[in-house]
Amino acid sequence: MTVRHVVVFRFHPGTPADRVEALRSELVAFSAALEPVLTYDVGEDLGVNEASWDFAVSATFADVEGYLAYRDDPEHQRIIRELVAPITAERASVQLAI
Amino acid sequence: MTVRHVVVFRFHPGTPADRVEALRSELVAFSAALEPVLTYDVGEDLGVNEASWDFAVSATFADVEGYLAYRDDPEHQRIIRELVAPITAERASVQLAI
Repeated sequence: MTVRHVVVFRFHPGTPADRVEALRSELVAFSAALEPVLTYDVGEDLGVNEASWDFAVSATFADVEGYLAYRDDPEHQRIIRELVAPITAERASVQLAI
Repeated sequence: MTVRHVVVFRFHPGTPADRVEALRSELVAFSAALEPVLTYDVGEDLGVNEASWDFAVSATFADVEGYLAYRDDPEHQRIIRELVAPITAERASVQLAI
């Protein structure tokens, strides 16, 4: 059962663009090196809808175990602690079978 | 520029499963019939993380115009009005370039 992991973020007002770009580039590098990641889309909101949040990840894994290996990877946890937590006001995620 | 549209929902507590399934199946039918939709993943949260929200869509379009045609399609607006709005407590979305 392929799993799609979707997560959206709202950052604190005034978050500098370079902090967001650092997060994006570290997630790209981390996900590209992690075997259980099948696909990984990540980036800033395009500004099409005024109500949209600021940033999203949509990734796929071969199974729940692959998603959990990603979620719990120490490098991922470091990125969350050092790059996500300081700038994040709200976060919402869903994991669905596809 | 391919666009990925990500949206997550939290439903009102006690929302009946058949209301969620009706929403899912109508979105599948609608999206399958709409030419600008390149890919469309939709479904309920698997329950892997306690803090996860309830339902998500992750879809791709060839460009922003394709996404807007989906967003503004009268059948989509009917589904939002009749099947999404009555059961939705919170909604968050992001559109990103991929």
